[in-house]
Order: sequence, then C-alpha cells, then structure tokens
Amino acid sequence: MSSQFGTALKIQIFGQSHAPAIGVSIDGFPVGFTPDMDALKTFLARRAPGQGAYATARKEPDKPEFLSGLVEGHTCGAPLTAIIRNTDTRAKDYGNIAEMPRPSHADYPAWVKYGNQADYRGGGHFSGRLTAPLCIAGGLCLQYLAQKGIHIGAHILSIGAVHDTAFDPVSPALPVGALTLDPAAWEKMQEEIAAAKAEMDSVGGVIECAVTGVQAGYGEPMFGGMENRLAQILFGIPAVKGVEFGAGFGCTELRGSQNNDPYYYDENGFVRTRTNHAGGIAGGISTGMPIVFRAAFKPTPSIARPQETIRFNGTTAPAVLEIKGRHDPCIVPRAVPVVEAAAAIAILDAILEGNQWS
Amino acid sequence: MSSQFGTALKIQIFGQSHAPAIGVSIDGFPVGFTPDMDALKTFLARRAPGQGAYATARKEPDKPEFLSGLVEGHTCGAPLTAIIRNTDTRAKDYGNIAEMPRPSHADYPAWVKYGNQADYRGGGHFSGRLTAPLCIAGGLCLQYLAQKGIHIGAHILSIGAVHDTAFDPVSPALPVGALTLDPAAWEKMQEEIAAAKAEMDSVGGVIECAVTGVQAGYGEPMFGGMENRLAQILFGIPAVKGVEFGAGFGCTELRGSQNNDPYYYDENGFVRTRTNHAGGIAGGISTGMPIVFRAAFKPTPSIARPQETIRFNGTTAPAVLEIKGRHDPCIVPRAVPVVEAAAAIAILDAILEGNQWS
Amino acid sequence: MSSQFGTALKIQIFGQSHAPAIGVSIDGFPVGFTPDMDALKTFLARRAPGQGAYATARKEPDKPEFLSGLVEGHTCGAPLTAIIRNTDTRAKDYGNIAEMPRPSHADYPAWVKYGNQADYRGGGHFSGRLTAPLCIAGGLCLQYLAQKGIHIGAHILSIGAVHDTAFDPVSPALPVGALTLDPAAWEKMQEEIAAAKAEMDSVGGVIECAVTGVQAGYGEPMFGGMENRLAQILFGIPAVKGVEFGAGFGCTELRGSQNNDPYYYDENGFVRTRTNHAGGIAGGISTGMPIVFRAAFKPTPSIARPQETIRFNGTTAPAVLEIKGRHDPCIVPRAVPVVEAAAAIAILDAILEGNQWS
Amino acid sequence: MSSQFGTALKIQIFGQSHAPAIGVSIDGFPVGFTPDMDALKTFLARRAPGQGAYATARKEPDKPEFLSGLVEGHTCGAPLTAIIRNTDTRAKDYGNIAEMPRPSHADYPAWVKYGNQADYRGGGHFSGRLTAPLCIAGGLCLQYLAQKGIHIGAHILSIGAVHDTAFDPVSPALPVGALTLDPAAWEKMQEEIAAAKAEMDSVGGVIECAVTGVQAGYGEPMFGGMENRLAQILFGIPAVKGVEFGAGFGCTELRGSQNNDPYYYDENGFVRTRTNHAGGIAGGISTGMPIVFRAAFKPTPSIARPQETIRFNGTTAPAVLEIKGRHDPCIVPRAVPVVEAAAAIAILDAILEGNQWS
Repeated sequence: MSSQFGTALKIQIFGQSHAPAIGVSIDGFPVGFTPDMDALKTFLARRAPGQGAYATARKEPDKPEFLSGLVEGHTCGAPLTAIIRNTDTRAKDYGNIAEMPRPSHADYPAWVKYGNQADYRGGGHFSGRLTAPLCIAGGLCLQYLAQKGIHIGAHILSIGAVHDTAFDPVSPALPVGALTLDPAAWEKMQEEIAAAKAEMDSVGGVIECAVTGVQAGYGEPMFGGMENRLAQILFGIPAVKGVEFGAGFGCTELRGSQNNDPYYYDENGFVRTRTNHAGGIAGGISTGMPIVFRAAFKPTPSIARPQETIRFNGTTAPAVLEIKGRHDPCIVPRAVPVVEAAAAIAILDAILEGNQWS
Repeated sequence: MSSQFGTALKIQIFGQSHAPAIGVSIDGFPVGFTPDMDALKTFLARRAPGQGAYATARKEPDKPEFLSGLVEGHTCGAPLTAIIRNTDTRAKDYGNIAEMPRPSHADYPAWVKYGNQADYRGGGHFSGRLTAPLCIAGGLCLQYLAQKGIHIGAHILSIGAVHDTAFDPVSPALPVGALTLDPAAWEKMQEEIAAAKAEMDSVGGVIECAVTGVQAGYGEPMFGGMENRLAQILFGIPAVKGVEFGAGFGCTELRGSQNNDPYYYDENGFVRTRTNHAGGIAGGISTGMPIVFRAAFKPTPSIARPQETIRFNGTTAPAVLEIKGRHDPCIVPRAVPVVEAAAAIAILDAILEGNQWS
Repeated sequence: MSSQFGTALKIQIFGQSHAPAIGVSIDGFPVGFTPDMDALKTFLARRAPGQGAYATARKEPDKPEFLSGLVEGHTCGAPLTAIIRNTDTRAKDYGNIAEMPRPSHADYPAWVKYGNQADYRGGGHFSGRLTAPLCIAGGLCLQYLAQKGIHIGAHILSIGAVHDTAFDPVSPALPVGALTLDPAAWEKMQEEIAAAKAEMDSVGGVIECAVTGVQAGYGEPMFGGMENRLAQILFGIPAVKGVEFGAGFGCTELRGSQNNDPYYYDENGFVRTRTNHAGGIAGGISTGMPIVFRAAFKPTPSIARPQETIRFNGTTAPAVLEIKGRHDPCIVPRAVPVVEAAAAIAILDAILEGNQWS
Repeated sequence: MSSQFGTALKIQIFGQSHAPAIGVSIDGFPVGFTPDMDALKTFLARRAPGQGAYATARKEPDKPEFLSGLVEGHTCGAPLTAIIRNTDTRAKDYGNIAEMPRPSHADYPAWVKYGNQADYRGGGHFSGRLTAPLCIAGGLCLQYLAQKGIHIGAHILSIGAVHDTAFDPVSPALPVGALTLDPAAWEKMQEEIAAAKAEMDSVGGVIECAVTGVQAGYGEPMFGGMENRLAQILFGIPAVKGVEFGAGFGCTELRGSQNNDPYYYDENGFVRTRTNHAGGIAGGISTGMPIVFRAAFKPTPSIARPQETIRFNGTTAPAVLEIKGRHDPCIVPRAVPVVEAAAAIAILDAILEGNQWS
C-alpha cells in the first residue's frame, strides 16, 4: 500500500504542498468517455480554499492540466494524468516547523520515517492539498458513474455539536448546491466555525455520504468488500479518524430484530429492503439499496494558539510552537466534495473489478 | 481486492462454512520463527463456539493442521499454509435459505453476484467461520510481534447499552484472560445477551483494541497508512459496520486545542504525547504512542424470530423465514481475539513493508 | 512478487518438496464451472514422475484433494484450493546437501536469503515438485478455456541437438497424445536422454507451445502485455532460462519486410495475417492469430557425477558432492504439460482482466 | 498488470506519442538520494533520436521536468514524478494509419481492444517514445545502484547477422561510451543498418546486458524471481520478442556436467562459481555472480516499402499502406540504455522488496 489505490482502476497521487505540481495518474479508466471539463472545474472549486470568510485565505486556482490519456477530448485507454501547478506557496510561513513538529500533524512520524529528508513545507506529501488531485480523479469518476445512473452526494452531518438532519437511508435526497439538507443547520455551523476562529482554535465534524443507483453484487468477499474499499480510500483523506456504514456505531445498541433489513419486491418488481441499517452493503457486497456512510473529521490541528512541542535539535527541553500562516479553522465544508470524489473512485473500481461494464 | 490482504505479508483465506476445510496461506512471514503451537490453540479456543451458555451450540474443534512453510517447527521462508477441517456441519439446518435470503446476510447480494452457483450453506465463504483461519494467521503474527516487544489486546467496550471502562489511550492496560477491564461490566453484559436470547433476538457491541510497543514511522502515506490498513482488514470481519481511531467520532465535538496531542520528551528521552486523541497515528504514520481503535459489530442477523423476506423462485409475494439451527445471540465476545488477530496481521505487514526488520 | 501470480485470476502456490502437502489457492476463477476431475487427473499424470525408463523412479501419486471452492462439483465464487499430499519422500537421500550446496540449484542463494532456516530437503519450495499444483490450477484453466474455444498445446521442439518439426505459426496443429509432432523425433530424443543417463549426466531442451482460438485485444499495455504475463509465469517453472515469442531470437536476423505480418480478411471476413512472426502478439496485445512461444529448459542440475562445491561449515577448502537419490536425466518431457498449464493461467488471467467474460 | 511495474519500487508510466507530455511517477524510491541531473540528461541523450545518420530524423529534446518528489535536490519519500513535453510531433505524418493498421504494430489489436477511441497518432501509448520516461526512472535507479556498488552495462551483441564479442559471464567488462565491446563490430553494424535503410527496410538485433556487484539472495521464489521480474519489464520495451539468461537457449544443447556452475571460495573468501551459465540466477534468486541476459529486438515494423493491410472502414478488399514520416531502420542502438534502465528498475525493486536496504 502507498500513494496508490485501486485494483481495476488504479490511481497514483503525487506531489507535495510546495512541489512544482501535484497530480494524479489513473490507469484503467473506461475508454471513450468525454469528460466535461467545465463541470470538473466547478467540482474542484467546491474544494478550493479562499471561499468565504470561514476558510483559509490561501488562493490556489485549481486548474487541472491534462498531460496524457485524452485524444480529441475523450479517454483513449492510455493512462490519464493531470496536474495542478502550485503557484501561491509563501514558503516562509513554514519556517519553524522543520525544527519543531506540529502536534497532531504528520511532521514527527514523517521525520522518524524519512529522517530530515522529508519535505516538511506545508505538510509535504501529507498536506490536505493532495485532496485536489484526488478530486480530479474522483470528479471524472463521478461524471462517468452519473452517466450509468449512479449518483453520489454528501452533506455536513455535524460540525462540533451542531447537527444537520441525516439522510433517509432508504431514499436519500442528495443535496444539490448546498452543504446541508437543512439550510438553518448550515447557518448555525458557520457560527460555530466563526466562534472557533475567534478563539484561535478549530473544530471538526462528520460528513455523511449516500450513493444511489447502485445495483446489487458489487464488491469482492472478505477484504475486497465495499466497506473495505471505501474505508481504505476515505482514511487517505487527511483528518479522517472514523468511518461507519449504515447505522454504524449506532447499530450496536439495536437488537437484531430492529437492525435487520427485511427484503420485499417493490411495485416495479425490484428487490428492496424495508429499512437500510446495512447502508446498502451486506457481507461486503452491495445490496442494491443506497450505500450510506459517514466519515469523522478531527478538528484542524493547525491552530494559532501556542502549543507545547519538542525540538529536533538534540535538546529535550519543552518548546513552544506558534503556527503562523493561513489555516482553516474547519476543513469540513471543503472536504464534502473530497468525500464524494473518494467514494466515486472506490465504487467505480469495484464495479470495473466485478466486470459489470467493459 | 478479494480474499487476499497485505503487501509484504500476504494472506489468502479460503474455505466455506461447509467446504471440506477452511484455511489460510501466508506468503512473506519472517523466516526462522518457531510458533508456539499450544499457545496458538489456546488463542483459537478464545474464538471457538461452544463456550458457555451464551454462545452457539455448534462445536467445531479448531485444530489447525500446517501443510507447508515449516521445517523442524520453524518458518523456512516458503509460504505457510494451515487448514482446519470442517467436521460438524449439520447441513440440513440451512435447507430453506437457498430459496429465501436471510435479511442482513450476504445471501441476496451473493446470489446476484454469483447466480445460484454460490455456496449458501452456512453463509458459504461469507460465514463467520472464516475468522478461524484469520485467527491462525493473526495468532502467529501476535506471537512474532510479542517477541519484538509489540503487544495487542482487545476488550469488549460495550454490548448494547452496557459499557466497560475504556482504555487509557496514553497507557492502556491490556487485558489478560478477561473480556472486559471491569469484571462487573462483563456480568451485566452477559445479562444483556441472555435477555436478547430469551427474546429470540440478538445484540451487538463495540470492541476496543490497543497496541503497545509500536515505534514511530510505520505505515505508508495516503492509502497505505495504519488506519487504511487496519480498516481494510477489520471490515473483513463479518458484522463490522464501523471503525474509528483514537478519539474517533468523538473528536468531532472537540476543539483543536483539546484534540491536539502535544509532544514532550519523557524521563528516558523518548518522544511521547501528553494525550493520545490520535490513537497513535498521525498522517497515517504511527507516532510511537499506543495505537487505539474501535470496531462496531452489528447485532447478529440470524435470529429465530420470523422475518419478512423474498423468494428466489420467481414469485414476488412476501415470504416468511424462520431460521433454524444454532446461532449466537451475540458474537462480540468471540470476536475479541479476531480483532486482535486482524490488527496483528495489518501491523506486521506495515512493519515489514517499511523494512523495519528483515 | 512472490509465490503469487495474477491480477484478476490470482493463484498462490504453497508447499515444499518434503512438507506435508503442496497445493494452490485460486481467487477469481469463474463461477459455475464444473471441472472434469478425471480429465484433470489424466492431465496431472502427464507430469508425474515414474513414467518409463527415462524418468525418475520416485512415484508420487498426484491425486488432488479439493479443500474449498466447489459446491456440488462446480465453482462457487469462493477461493478454490487443492492440495496433494507428499507421501514418498525418502528424506535421507538429501542428507549431505544441507552442508554442501548443489551447483546450479537454489541451495546456495536460498541459504544466503533465508540463512540455515530454509527447507533444503528436495529443494524445498524451489523443487520441481511445485509444478504439480501449478498443473492443478492450469489444468482447470485449460478446461475452462477449451469451453470458450481456446486450445493450448505444447510439444518438445528439441532435446539437446535433436529437433522436432516446429509449429506452423499461422495454423499450428496442436499435438494430441504425443510429445512431438514427428514421432521419429521422439525416438531420437529418447536415445539422447538414455545416452545422457548412461554417462551419469543430464540434457536440456526447448518446449514450443501454441494457443489457438484467441481473439484479438487481450493483454494490457507496457508491463501487462501477453508476453510480459506469459514470461513472468514461465520463468516460475524451474529450469527455464529463456522465453521467446513468434520468430523470437530468430527474427533479429530478418529484415522488417520479411518479419512483418501483413493483414488481410479471410473468406469468412475475419482479420488474419499472412505470416505470424509476431507469434500472435503485437504491442503486447493479442492479434487474433495463434500465440506461439518457446521456453528453454536447462539440463537438470542434479547429476550423479561428482561435482566441485563448497561447504557451509566455515571451511573454504573445496568439497566434492555426489548427489544420491532419484533424479531425472531430462525433465523436458514432464515439463510439456507444465508449460501448457502456465500458459492457460496467464491467458485466462489476461482475459478476465480485460473483462472479456464475466 | 498494466502500465505499472514493481512491488516495493512502483513505477507508473503515462503518456502517448502525441499527448502533451509523457512521464513517469515512482513510488517507493529510497529517501535522501540526490540525483545527478546532468548525468541523467547525458543518459537520456543516449536514447534520444536524431543522433547520426542511421537514426530517425525526429528531434525531441528530452529534458525531464521534475514535478514532485524532490526537495532541495534530494528525494524526500513522496512519489517522484517527471515529465517530458512533446514538442515536435508532425501529426500529419500519421494520417492514413487511423484507417489502415500498420503490420506488426499495435494498431490493429489496440483498435479491437479500445475501439476507434484509442490514440493512434505515432502509436499512441504503445510508441517507442514511452521508453523515454522508462529511462528517467531507470536512470535514477542506475545512479542509486552505482552508489551501492552495483553496475549495469549493455552492448549490442548483434545486428542482423553481424556479431560483437559476448560478455565473459564470469567477469564481464562493462562497456563505457561504446555500443559494442569490439569497435570493429560497430563499424560493420552501421553498414548493415545503412544497407537496410537504402532498401527502405529495417533490421533487428540482440542486446546483451550484465550486472555486476550483485550480492546473492535477491529475488523471491516462483513468480517473483530475478528472471521473472527482468522479463516482465523487458517485454515492456517495444520490439522485444525474446529474453534469455546466462547461457539461455544455448544451454539446451549442453549436458548438465557442462552447464552446471561449480562453487568455490575465491582468494578473498567470497563464494563464486567457476563458470556462470546460470547468468547469476538460480532458482530465481541471485547467486552473487554477475547477472547476464539478452533481449531480442525485432526489426522495426515501420518501413517505407508498400505493405499489404486492411481497412477499418467496413470493406474487406486488400489495401496498400505506405508509411510516411521519419522512422528508424534500426532501434537497437537507441535501445541499449533502455535495457540498462529496465534492468536497474527491476533489480532495485527486488532489492527493496528483499529488505536489503531501507
């Protein structure tokens, strides 16, 4: 395992926050597909920083440049590679980190793993910036899946203690152009984020995602199931500390008679379940009901408050770190499209591996 | 992905509940290691059915037979393969399932995936029985890791609404010979299970696991991190519907200043963190602090109560299924060693991939 | 890489010459296929020792025992595992090898790789015996491919300097029940083998294999092509030291105008080439013409003559090794079905990866 | 399998002949290594077209641009990605190929595999141009291996019927700055190439490669051996139709007593073999003797002479194709560094997988 994901659809993500570029190479994407580049840019913009007062002030125009894999605008079977140039980096913001690891970031374990050879600028290869190429790959997968009748939509289920309504797992209404299902929840969430920012602090949240139009039978047994695949890619998004499917941890307080999802034939003769505590997956295989899952995002570790840490220079006395620069008090709103992108990649990979389509 | 897991340490699990045997083949296990076969049998016994009144009455003596990979009792570099013969199957208990899928089991999606060719007896390859070979592989990994100073221990954090105390994530006391940290909790849990059984129902729970002695630097970036690897293998255990690390979903209600883990040098000059909300993993890489995670197990789907389902015979009228046979009202106690085994495999694989040991 | 091969059809081979058993586990074999077990045994018998005066006297009845993956005689989607018990080992024949590596065997490099922990009895995991489970897996693939109209046949092209006629690459006539296309060649070859045996020596040869019924379009670009896949599996057969496709090394003495294969439509409207120097593969992708390749087998290293070697006991003085036991003066006749089996596995894997069939 | 190669050192090559760029992304390259960029450019220049009268007139300045993986000039543990912009393409040279497949090129099988969606310009992803990024990756591996005392050198063993002297497999003298070991051979080879060009034809050849400084013990059993790995990557070089190791196909005419390589201790106490028919590999594992292998390159399929072919437009009448544009009458001289690059990648991957170095 590594910076590569997938079996039939293989993606390799490369780049560091302050490298010349970040990007992704995709091997196995279906042939003859014409990406809608405008829609892709719109999708990437949902992730980009510099939107509104609650996000970071760093403005990176995410314009993907396709280096290979397309001919006359359509995929041709050769690996598809796209990059985004890093242009606005302000490296000097990160000066003191090379000596003092930031708490709850990858700095210290990366230093142990790579010695002082690792790229620490902006978090290097561990930076949240690497979700941009993940979104390019996922954005293409989302478009392809949509043409096949599979739709993916996520919303912010909670930020701190502020909650949105949850999806109806039997028939989720995917959000369009909104971060929450209930607009009032988003208002309160923004207040929560502003409060954290005012305190030089940060806050986390939970993103809930649903996938509709999925037929039964996707996924491979044991370690290749839909949960295994989705979890493996979701934990690749920085800040994710938990993933649950269907009723998730909540189902542990239900009886089997409550948690089981009985089968029936609907009026069109399709097999459905009355409830969907399974989140659309049983035995790792899709059941045909919507796939529903949640990912927990920890509060952003980069806060402006002084923090206790150590130094890499041989001394053992405590040090105090004050992180300068521009940081999100909450990355959850920006992570919503990232979760959709990750889900799309994992689902398309499972479908292609299962030979559902050519 | 499939019934194979691992990069440096590759395991392939085979078998169905009612096949002649179930087993595992391991490629890449370190050379020159002498397994303690008695300890392995004791470990497997923790998982076996037929223990006490609350578990299933099916008695499978889990005696692993090693077919390859050992010479004079030690590993020799060739793939290590072990099987367990299935002897007590009572296939007739499963007669009516071939026509009526059991709610929340893999029967229906497997039927879509494999047609009526799949092995439905006892759940086939999706059966919980396949956790036995997982425990053989994991049992060997646990022994090897222990020799290297890495110890793994799990306990039942909750069954239904009954809770045990949680691990101290900074310094977890791994349980020895007990399923909970607080004996009183286990008493109440057994009552909960008995209550469910009396109602012809089932109950789920959460297992918490800790790993001590882990050095910093294990795991690979992005999709090869410790969380990705552990999640991928844990979701391969039947009934797991959620996995979280450290403070998990709970951290989403904390501020960054609360959730961050400050670094300091302890009295021996080792780098530690004051708290461990990260559960020992940051940026996917181990930090040197104990790895702590939780897995949510749904209530056992096989309950004796009548359930609504469909028939595979072309009719669309509702059907009623009554599952006969012997089924656990709660598989969580038996899953505790399975979680330890899964963790051991994922951790040893990450260490070997990172070239920490030969 | 390791003792595993394949992308869509994954095989893991396990066992050592003197382990309790040798075997193979296959993940991804198509569902709903009923192997002809009698035909499989007949196929394995082509490989088995103890046939005729020119082969080794060791008699291992190769009766595969299927442990998993079948239900009511057909494949069910779960991993397919089969073993062969080792019963006739005469371990004492190998006594002095643990101290003195046999020239041109794996003993010495294995000793460096695994220390004195490796299993040296009979060559351990490097033994030619491991071609038996390869033949089980390949035998099943051969049967499945045959049902799809794809046939594979190999013959001995040469033993020492004695040659058979070669396949007509445009329209090869696959041999049935014979090791050569020209019976007279086989007579001369047996004389060559007998001569070598009489001299306490051994002789090698070349096996040529053809695959008919292959449609165009199989294989993946660059490193996943048909040649890459076939070569990777063929070099896993002990004693193979060269692999070539189509005109192979011979094409290097042709001009492009001679070596190119012009396209045309035959009387049925199918695309064919006038010649087939490409051996059915261009750019790594199958062209629809028969796939033709050759594998070179070195002369068996185990000869009865005294040989110079070293000792592992710290002394540097030359040592003399006399190999006792029963050894083939020529393994080429027994390797013919092994080459067919290997080809079948690689080809079915490529077809499944390319999503040609479900 | 696909356009990715490797287990511990994973490379993904992307690009088509006429895409905006071609490139490679490498995951797993050792950390803390400072590439010599000037040496890399010099190495790439050995491969570039436009050198001398015998090669193609297309001039592509191969200047690799590193997008990621370096910080302050050294590798940092994150994936290493480099691209080369395609600038001189003259697409109009390839106009008639979209309708008429060139004999012995990938055009036809690619059309079957990808439909008319594939990129046919210049051979698309199957173009020999993709050996440039292979050389970037391999060039870095060559530098790294050299620092560890492992050196790789190749020469043209033959072009057509003109032969160079072969390497002494026991102690090969790696060529420096020359394409052959005997300068007179190179003179004759150039005459051979010129003769082919004058006839509007092409000629092939054999490249021999040796690797010195290799310790014993590299490679994994069965399908992960040094021969399997080298063959898998070498057949990824366009035009390769055969690969052999050590005495290769020639050993099939030797007796075992002639082909075996006896062991002895040299004056420094190192284990060596008197001869090296094994080419440095036994049982797939390196023996410590030089690794020696040969790759056969077919004559360039693109010749100016008229050739019979078909049309993709529904008609079945024969068509005549005359390939315009600039084509090498012999790509063997340019392929010499490509073979070295491929060997370096495979060998470094095997060493890293075997945990020889961090």
